[in-house]
Amino acid sequence: MSEQTASAKRPLDLILAKREGLEHTAADLEALIAGYVAGVVPDYQLSAWLMAVCWRGMTAAETAALTKAMAQSGDVLDLSSLPHTVDKHSTGGVGDKTTLVLAPLLAAMGATVAKMSGRGLGHTGGTVDKLESIPGFTTDLDDERFLRQAREVSVVVTGQSNDLAPADGLIYALRDVSGTVESLPLIASSVMSKKLAGGAHSIVLDVKVGSGAFMRDVAAARQLATAMADIGAHAGREVRAILSGMAEPLGYAVGNALEVNEAIACLKGGGPNDLRELCLVLAAEVLSATGLPSGRADIAAALDDGRAYERFERWVAAQGGAVERLDSLELAPDQELIRAESTGAVSALDARSIGEAAGLLGGGRAKKGDAVDHGVGVMLHAKVGGEVSADEPVATIYHRGGRGLEAASAKLRGAITLADSAQPLELIVETGLGGTHAG
Amino acid sequence: MSEQTASAKRPLDLILAKREGLEHTAADLEALIAGYVAGVVPDYQLSAWLMAVCWRGMTAAETAALTKAMAQSGDVLDLSSLPHTVDKHSTGGVGDKTTLVLAPLLAAMGATVAKMSGRGLGHTGGTVDKLESIPGFTTDLDDERFLRQAREVSVVVTGQSNDLAPADGLIYALRDVSGTVESLPLIASSVMSKKLAGGAHSIVLDVKVGSGAFMRDVAAARQLATAMADIGAHAGREVRAILSGMAEPLGYAVGNALEVNEAIACLKGGGPNDLRELCLVLAAEVLSATGLPSGRADIAAALDDGRAYERFERWVAAQGGAVERLDSLELAPDQELIRAESTGAVSALDARSIGEAAGLLGGGRAKKGDAVDHGVGVMLHAKVGGEVSADEPVATIYHRGGRGLEAASAKLRGAITLADSAQPLELIVETGLGGTHAG
Repeated sequence: MSEQTASAKRPLDLILAKREGLEHTAADLEALIAGYVAGVVPDYQLSAWLMAVCWRGMTAAETAALTKAMAQSGDVLDLSSLPHTVDKHSTGGVGDKTTLVLAPLLAAMGATVAKMSGRGLGHTGGTVDKLESIPGFTTDLDDERFLRQAREVSVVVTGQSNDLAPADGLIYALRDVSGTVESLPLIASSVMSKKLAGGAHSIVLDVKVGSGAFMRDVAAARQLATAMADIGAHAGREVRAILSGMAEPLGYAVGNALEVNEAIACLKGGGPNDLRELCLVLAAEVLSATGLPSGRADIAAALDDGRAYERFERWVAAQGGAVERLDSLELAPDQELIRAESTGAVSALDARSIGEAAGLLGGGRAKKGDAVDHGVGVMLHAKVGGEVSADEPVATIYHRGGRGLEAASAKLRGAITLADSAQPLELIVETGLGGTHAG
Repeated sequence: MSEQTASAKRPLDLILAKREGLEHTAADLEALIAGYVAGVVPDYQLSAWLMAVCWRGMTAAETAALTKAMAQSGDVLDLSSLPHTVDKHSTGGVGDKTTLVLAPLLAAMGATVAKMSGRGLGHTGGTVDKLESIPGFTTDLDDERFLRQAREVSVVVTGQSNDLAPADGLIYALRDVSGTVESLPLIASSVMSKKLAGGAHSIVLDVKVGSGAFMRDVAAARQLATAMADIGAHAGREVRAILSGMAEPLGYAVGNALEVNEAIACLKGGGPNDLRELCLVLAAEVLSATGLPSGRADIAAALDDGRAYERFERWVAAQGGAVERLDSLELAPDQELIRAESTGAVSALDARSIGEAAGLLGGGRAKKGDAVDHGVGVMLHAKVGGEVSADEPVATIYHRGGRGLEAASAKLRGAITLADSAQPLELIVETGLGGTHAG
């Protein structure tokens, strides 16, 4: 009896070990996760274990082993036949359309971006929702089409499969209802399990910091970035990470079609400075991990000389999107201006509230399966540090027949703060994280 | 929306509050426990909350409120019409037959002992199992008979109802499989919820310390005793607690009928010194809380002059037991002696191993509903500190046709340690705990 239980630890033994602060082996964690996915380990044991993890933490080796076990709980994409596979992950921000720019930009630079992306819950849509603002664009690709497009166009984005790291989805749902969301190793393993299953060799992580981000302070964001990079290194991937500010939205556009328009401007060499800057920094980080040219001037040239936009059009066409409609995406028919109450400088544009405003208009979804209105959203006309005159428009609300307008308008007004003077916000907080374990 | 959720906290809010180390209100805890018993709060939320309690602990006020909520989750006995109601709880030890002595002794002293007692899982039976060694003795009493006997005989012991603090049974089962058994407030509230529901006004707690007890060290045992006494005080009960040693078994007998015989010897003024001493100390503690005479000489007189034994016979008769068989209870027909391997002093009689030996013979139950063999067990012939000669019997095993004999014999030999010299063990470690809040 005792010999048997010694070699195959029961879930209860793992709970007790973790509450004592002991370290699990990789085999322990594989068995626990496989058991949970198979329905053998009950929710009440996993939730107790998760709380013990929140309490005691996990070592880097445990976190890496947990992530690997989650990544291997379903399909793992094999991208090894493709050149210079790269991926990007952002911890989530308002107005963040970088994937729309970065994917064709990196492809234009010689990398392959074969990416699964979420629809996402939240106030504004995910990358897949934004792409679906383009008439005809499909993100429902089978494996064969996905890989063929990756080979032929070097850029493809599909909706996230339920079979990619299914353990993550199951565990996240349990964390959500058991008070165990906030835990560095659990957050890091959740993100990285999907990245590892996604198969790209080089990965750049954009960890957002600030009032509009999950991470409010720099030290915590740096810890998360380092933990995720460590997981990647343990798994033999090249991972780089940066911290970027998320106190105000990225760029001016918040809302699906509005954001695609802004991404297109950036892909044509224009667009908001902050969006362009973030894309250049992220591209340089991940390209440096591939060995491809990664100089800033080289990357900027691909935006400025039309190569990035040309790749974007090929990508859109390959996924059935109406390229001829890219300069006239449908926006919500009704607009309302939000005007400055006084003359002054914009001292805050609270990203979270602005995202919530877009959500109130119908631009996001509260639960799986909700429809998203691609045309609604908020267009800012200033950034923090900018000067405005009394009565000058600070933002335009795109709404559909007044749906959610009153609440969104109040939310938006509350998000905008004016002062006598204000400095622009710092965008790039830190670069060059990760990569220390790289071979 | 936010006003609603503020007034009625969801289970998730309570988990999050506890993992932050915040204090729950009594209303919070009532809602959580009522929700769990009603099946509205799922196991996976309660187990996460329980682990957060293991992590952050609970204040005395929270522990008292939790206990009250558990006590009120089912029937609460109303003993208020009975004089000087008393109860005793032991945290569990090997060879502990004190209830069999204490109940009629306290009744003889003027108190009322109307007690629900468990069958208990474990190596040896619980009080109810011991009583059922007596032919005809029934512990299956309805409420009316229970209260009538309490009034007429002043002593009655019945099997524990499932309706007494059902929350405790449910929560204990979950703690058992979620790694959340070890937690001072959870252990204290579990014990005290049943005591509060049991309705007695004055309660004495015998917290065992040592290798054969749940609590291995004195400081932890003192904390538990104090926490339980505090709960009682918060609930308006008079609670006293002592710590007693449980490194060797109490008395010499381990096994149901063997223990009844030893209890009867004690009730007649004889029996092992340690059993008599513990009964005198516990009786004095709880009687002092009632205001009845509690002097040691008075209590000893009730054992020595036959009043306690007379009350025991009335009690047995009232519950259908064959009084005429009390001097000839059936013991297992087969015996084997364990002999000293050398001349020396007994330096250890490991209580846990001796209990396990009795279990191997069939004297306990591993799971609910298992049959218990009342006749088997172990009779020691020495206590720690006693001298033995080589080949002299140190213990007798009572077995039935060799069932479990080999393993029990090995276990028992391993439990007995001889040395050149040894001191007797300390029995009463601490007295006079609790009672500080008493009115």
